[in-house]
Amino acid sequence: MIQFDYHFKVRYKDIDQMGVMYYSRYFEYYEAARTDMMSDLGLTYKELEEQGIMMPVVHSESDYLAGSGFDDHLICKTEIREKHGNRMEIFYTVVSENLPANIINTGKTIHAFVKLNGKPTRIPQSLKQVVDNKWEHVK
Amino acid sequence: MIQFDYHFKVRYKDIDQMGVMYYSRYFEYYEAARTDMMSDLGLTYKELEEQGIMMPVVHSESDYLAGSGFDDHLICKTEIREKHGNRMEIFYTVVSENLPANIINTGKTIHAFVKLNGKPTRIPQSLKQVVDNKWEHVK
Amino acid sequence: MIQFDYHFKVRYKDIDQMGVMYYSRYFEYYEAARTDMMSDLGLTYKELEEQGIMMPVVHSESDYLAGSGFDDHLICKTEIREKHGNRMEIFYTVVSENLPANIINTGKTIHAFVKLNGKPTRIPQSLKQVVDNKWEHVK
Amino acid sequence: MIQFDYHFKVRYKDIDQMGVMYYSRYFEYYEAARTDMMSDLGLTYKELEEQGIMMPVVHSESDYLAGSGFDDHLICKTEIREKHGNRMEIFYTVVSENLPANIINTGKTIHAFVKLNGKPTRIPQSLKQVVDNKWEHVK
Repeated sequence: MIQFDYHFKVRYKDIDQMGVMYYSRYFEYYEAARTDMMSDLGLTYKELEEQGIMMPVVHSESDYLAGSGFDDHLICKTEIREKHGNRMEIFYTVVSENLPANIINTGKTIHAFVKLNGKPTRIPQSLKQVVDNKWEHVK
Repeated sequence: MIQFDYHFKVRYKDIDQMGVMYYSRYFEYYEAARTDMMSDLGLTYKELEEQGIMMPVVHSESDYLAGSGFDDHLICKTEIREKHGNRMEIFYTVVSENLPANIINTGKTIHAFVKLNGKPTRIPQSLKQVVDNKWEHVK
Repeated sequence: MIQFDYHFKVRYKDIDQMGVMYYSRYFEYYEAARTDMMSDLGLTYKELEEQGIMMPVVHSESDYLAGSGFDDHLICKTEIREKHGNRMEIFYTVVSENLPANIINTGKTIHAFVKLNGKPTRIPQSLKQVVDNKWEHVK
Repeated sequence: MIQFDYHFKVRYKDIDQMGVMYYSRYFEYYEAARTDMMSDLGLTYKELEEQGIMMPVVHSESDYLAGSGFDDHLICKTEIREKHGNRMEIFYTVVSENLPANIINTGKTIHAFVKLNGKPTRIPQSLKQVVDNKWEHVK
């Protein structure tokens, strides 16, 4: 299975007065994680948009298992999966670099594929090949 | 059922280059909606914190049914429900002021109750009474 | 002088672990304040963009005189001024609703006018008239 | 002079519908830049807070010279300077990795030193030594 590790640090802007990361900020780091995963797979999201394909989020969710504090060094472990040829599911597991066995947060986003005119479309061949090839590597 | 309408406008800061509200911003408006609902119920979240009770989010989710653009006037219809005496579920339905029948977004957050030392606790009596009284009104 | 009062509440998302509003959030409220001021003047920023005029920020600044905490009810007093026919200066003074004499924050943004192709242009006549007419009212 | 290069990528969350980074986001990257610079100098901001010293921003400003788009790889060149023993001035220059001669944005933040009780204090010795030693290196 394709897995990508996105490393990041919790910033002051992310922390609320409970001293932990505010709940919606995880979704911003999910975005960074999936963007860098796609670059790592050899197909940037920017190129997709230049080909006239956008990947709007149609569903998002997050489970908060433990708090993360200022300047914590975290990893967002990210996995991608095609679904029915017209959806992409991406899974996120956030852990601390120091204590990777303790899960801080898990999440999921589901993405559709749409053309610039907003019409739904199938997963672009370029992305499908990249994902499928990678899957084969780990079979 | 307790329902509160939170009115807001989509701001430039919320819009991405697809021209629609960025997916994590909905969670920020959910927060504004539930905070104002609690004030409207006669019990502010600030007072809860001053009583030593915090309501961290343990789960959040959102479904994006349609885009919302800059300066759209939206309503976040918000409902609150106690669950098992130690959780609070809050439901959100975002519609346009002009076209309230068309649902733009739905979401849910689940909140735990914890003391300042981080230990879990039951729903505070003050909040329970407020919620229960309101429920009776609509029975 | 044109002055517009934008009322807002400090949200949990705005507060950092010092318990006060994070410094960059003020700029987000400045945006809400100037957008609503323009609507109040009878010319929305959305209409300007539809006419092919954008008003990018070319300079911003903020002075933090006192902290503002969660659920504080604040007013952002906003003033607009044309400058040299190709710039707009907007001034912001943030005070508490309860204690309007105590200034929490002051700020300024300077805006250019550009066409959709990015070329600079003069202040649009529609905006100039609105601003000039209002100025006359207070002479 | 102490100079630190903070590398970052522009994220979808940062981009508005003009297709460029929203103006207040620069301040968030300034924060990341100065935090990592302090770590690089051997004194983390987290340690300072644990010693009971906070460095609230008392002034911030930014000049927007050119836009930066999605997935641009940028550098925030950061410099720190002590001022009068009770202020720290930090300067930021944002350039593209590909075209470092073209300045996209410049900014400045001024920080005070306060104790946990909010009382102003002098620059902590630990920070002063770090800054002063580094200055000597480049004399």
